[in-house]
Amino acid sequence: MMIGMKQGSNDERHRAVFDIAGRKVGGEHFTVIAGPCTVESRDQILTSADAMLTAGATMFRGGAYKPRTSPYSFQGLGQEGLRLLAEAKERTGLPIVTELMDVRDVEAVCEVADVIQVGARNMQNYTLLSEIGRSGTPAILKRGLSATLEELVMAAEYILKEGNEKVLLCERGIRTYEPAYRFTLDLMAVPVLKEMTHLPIIVDPSHAAGRRDLVPSLSLAAAAVGADGIIVEVHPEPDEAICDGPQQLRLEDFPAYLEQVERVAQAAGKQLSAAAV
Amino acid sequence: MMIGMKQGSNDERHRAVFDIAGRKVGGEHFTVIAGPCTVESRDQILTSADAMLTAGATMFRGGAYKPRTSPYSFQGLGQEGLRLLAEAKERTGLPIVTELMDVRDVEAVCEVADVIQVGARNMQNYTLLSEIGRSGTPAILKRGLSATLEELVMAAEYILKEGNEKVLLCERGIRTYEPAYRFTLDLMAVPVLKEMTHLPIIVDPSHAAGRRDLVPSLSLAAAAVGADGIIVEVHPEPDEAICDGPQQLRLEDFPAYLEQVERVAQAAGKQLSAAAV
Amino acid sequence: MMIGMKQGSNDERHRAVFDIAGRKVGGEHFTVIAGPCTVESRDQILTSADAMLTAGATMFRGGAYKPRTSPYSFQGLGQEGLRLLAEAKERTGLPIVTELMDVRDVEAVCEVADVIQVGARNMQNYTLLSEIGRSGTPAILKRGLSATLEELVMAAEYILKEGNEKVLLCERGIRTYEPAYRFTLDLMAVPVLKEMTHLPIIVDPSHAAGRRDLVPSLSLAAAAVGADGIIVEVHPEPDEAICDGPQQLRLEDFPAYLEQVERVAQAAGKQLSAAAV
Amino acid sequence: MMIGMKQGSNDERHRAVFDIAGRKVGGEHFTVIAGPCTVESRDQILTSADAMLTAGATMFRGGAYKPRTSPYSFQGLGQEGLRLLAEAKERTGLPIVTELMDVRDVEAVCEVADVIQVGARNMQNYTLLSEIGRSGTPAILKRGLSATLEELVMAAEYILKEGNEKVLLCERGIRTYEPAYRFTLDLMAVPVLKEMTHLPIIVDPSHAAGRRDLVPSLSLAAAAVGADGIIVEVHPEPDEAICDGPQQLRLEDFPAYLEQVERVAQAAGKQLSAAAV
Repeated sequence: MMIGMKQGSNDERHRAVFDIAGRKVGGEHFTVIAGPCTVESRDQILTSADAMLTAGATMFRGGAYKPRTSPYSFQGLGQEGLRLLAEAKERTGLPIVTELMDVRDVEAVCEVADVIQVGARNMQNYTLLSEIGRSGTPAILKRGLSATLEELVMAAEYILKEGNEKVLLCERGIRTYEPAYRFTLDLMAVPVLKEMTHLPIIVDPSHAAGRRDLVPSLSLAAAAVGADGIIVEVHPEPDEAICDGPQQLRLEDFPAYLEQVERVAQAAGKQLSAAAV
Repeated sequence: MMIGMKQGSNDERHRAVFDIAGRKVGGEHFTVIAGPCTVESRDQILTSADAMLTAGATMFRGGAYKPRTSPYSFQGLGQEGLRLLAEAKERTGLPIVTELMDVRDVEAVCEVADVIQVGARNMQNYTLLSEIGRSGTPAILKRGLSATLEELVMAAEYILKEGNEKVLLCERGIRTYEPAYRFTLDLMAVPVLKEMTHLPIIVDPSHAAGRRDLVPSLSLAAAAVGADGIIVEVHPEPDEAICDGPQQLRLEDFPAYLEQVERVAQAAGKQLSAAAV
Repeated sequence: MMIGMKQGSNDERHRAVFDIAGRKVGGEHFTVIAGPCTVESRDQILTSADAMLTAGATMFRGGAYKPRTSPYSFQGLGQEGLRLLAEAKERTGLPIVTELMDVRDVEAVCEVADVIQVGARNMQNYTLLSEIGRSGTPAILKRGLSATLEELVMAAEYILKEGNEKVLLCERGIRTYEPAYRFTLDLMAVPVLKEMTHLPIIVDPSHAAGRRDLVPSLSLAAAAVGADGIIVEVHPEPDEAICDGPQQLRLEDFPAYLEQVERVAQAAGKQLSAAAV
Repeated sequence: MMIGMKQGSNDERHRAVFDIAGRKVGGEHFTVIAGPCTVESRDQILTSADAMLTAGATMFRGGAYKPRTSPYSFQGLGQEGLRLLAEAKERTGLPIVTELMDVRDVEAVCEVADVIQVGARNMQNYTLLSEIGRSGTPAILKRGLSATLEELVMAAEYILKEGNEKVLLCERGIRTYEPAYRFTLDLMAVPVLKEMTHLPIIVDPSHAAGRRDLVPSLSLAAAAVGADGIIVEVHPEPDEAICDGPQQLRLEDFPAYLEQVERVAQAAGKQLSAAAV
């Protein structure tokens, strides 16, 4: 019997609601995870984290280890990046979401991360998934570029099977023939995954679009279609970003953006998730 | 120079707003085209049309000519179907949207139709498109199952080129590897098409999903992402429908559905389009 | 019961073998249909046809009506193109293969064509298919850009149903995410279609690749995988071609190319189809 | 500058030719890697290896670690599987090809493997690729289910960059919309990859088809299109296989199959690669 396969009725009461570092995820809570693609410098990270706290984001994201198509591209700050994320967490109290790529880094990443992110390229890296399961740290599992929903749910099972129940699934765009955008955001995946599993489902509009200007409308659509949250890239100076600059929102545009998203999430029956007071 | 290619700034004021049989389409108007997949009987059509009028739909749809994968499937009532649509129009005053497949039927269809629908399979049937252009009747051009956005805009140009300016583009799902649903609704197409062309963009959630229960959430997402309208299938007795029963909404569920859609469309800055009074 | 669905055992004896203008198609016969993409001029057509006759091609192809993505591209010579094809046929005796796009041109095209070609964009133009069925002229039905094999066989049924038994199915590349070539040639379609139907299956390497240099290796692969023939583009001066120049083989390279293809076809148990003497 | 990017002319002389355990790979050598999907038992492995030796295969394959979609499926014999492969190697002298999934197993696998296989799901598992690069053991890198050719060549670069020059790229089918087979074998990838890189390119017809009966025709097509080899699954009792039984050839059919493949490879200018005597 699959742990991730939903039991009982399709009633919202049967959906998982997690507590992650004092924030509620799933159910009627709408989670907004925001921050830069990559940890680049102390100033960049602290400025971003402060802004996310002020705007009201639920969690802060930033990559210390980066899976890059080319081995000659910047591969992330590594340990130094983790240290900066720890500093941002201490300063703002925001839970940290960061990517893990190598099973040998599990311990180091779990010291800082409140949520481990598994990228699309590693969705079927089963040894990594099992280790995350054993770590007990909550995880976001991104859908592979051409993974079926069934494969995504099965991959989550590698984590769940080890006793780690806090898994969020993330739709981030699939590969299609269309050349007009990087990936095709498959929003129908959200309601269909909700039938298949009780796990929370979030959406990453930034990687799907690859372009900042499309992020707001896709975020609204994600909220309207019933997603439990979004993970979105924001940067103090996107034009100077080491990686994926064109898709990162500007810090100064984030508050208005978040307000819009919150309005549609409320229309869809959800409340923005924030720290308990 | 392409007629369909947008000129000037990306300002909403430069977007096309059409008048179709007294209804406004495009701009700040949200168009809801609803009705059964196929014209089956007088009773079915008049019951549906009455319900659409009462609920507040903008236009009424129904297919008299049906493109079917198998030649042994029901091919539509043809002329008799057109006659029933004409009766529904006379009775309710709702503009009629119906599909044209054969250039030899242009005249007959245009006598009844306020909007000609071109199905996905005929998106690149250029002789058909040119004839529709010459007819002057407004048209909905559905995106082919694997058409790029550029090809869709180019296909519209076959109609525009003949002097017919009233073309609506329709995203209705593309073919991908995912087996969990019939097609993958590509909602990112909406904002991207809005950059490419000034034409109104509508969304067909029924054909994409192939399942009634997914239609409401996809419709909300379409409204949130900025679509200028939706075309949706509704049937008095979906379980008895000759064609595509599982994807058609029930008449009795339509008013509540429409109310929800209207609320999100308003949040996105649009008003439901209705007859001028 | 489907006419196109194969009955009986999978034995080669149950496969269709047609006679088309004195050439055998299907079974142990390997058909090579070659010629320019588009009919451009008398000189171009007669030079090409002479060269195809000399090299030993089975049939001659050339388009008088061209389905073009943009309405502003060259749309073919039309009637004048048909006249030139008729002249080429009279001169060389080669059967003519040419595309039909408009039901109103059936009669004119059938006067010249020994085989009507239905392009990928019109694979599901059912009114066109039915008319071709009624015309009785043999047809090549190209697979749509994202048509399943079942849809292709079903589309053929629209022709077969009208009593026209001579239908060749053509794999010409499908649309995938891969940007390195125009289409992805799906050679597995050949053996799988052979299980589904008794109809001959041919392959179009030119449109799939979109590049001349890939055509020879794809043609060899098509012969090796068991195709009943190929349809390939050849032009006296590809660099001057109005349409699809980069994918057309040069006339002077054709004899060596054909020899190679013939060798692999023989290894796969087939003989090049030629006029009965 | 990319190591994997081909320099100089497109002449065959510039293509890489490796020596792997006394067998030549690449250039005019056609490599046949054959054996069961999974190591299941001593008897199964030794019987298979003996048969491959007798038939004339170049290398022997078998999986000790298996990446499985579900965590509840058989995950491979692990260390015990490696031991059995070592025994097969000692007995037959055939070089061993086996999959590596976990960076912590590099040493153990390299003790036995002459070639490490990286599965499609791990094509972008960059930490794994870098470790394989450092190990110096030759590797087969399978194309991800929706990887572009450029991404495949870039992933190979992660191995090459560490000083390991012996990388074979493997086309094994990509994910498309077509439901008639598991994957769509993209044979055009072979000539296009040959333009992009000097590395040898092999084809896996077994995983693409998922069905034994399609393997022979696809193998011939792979040889005809210019591949440098194939990797194919063969099992003494496919109906009893733990994993992927339906796609594995029967031992008794292998010699006739190999003879056919060899004939087409020769027609394409290559010789079956075998041990130097």
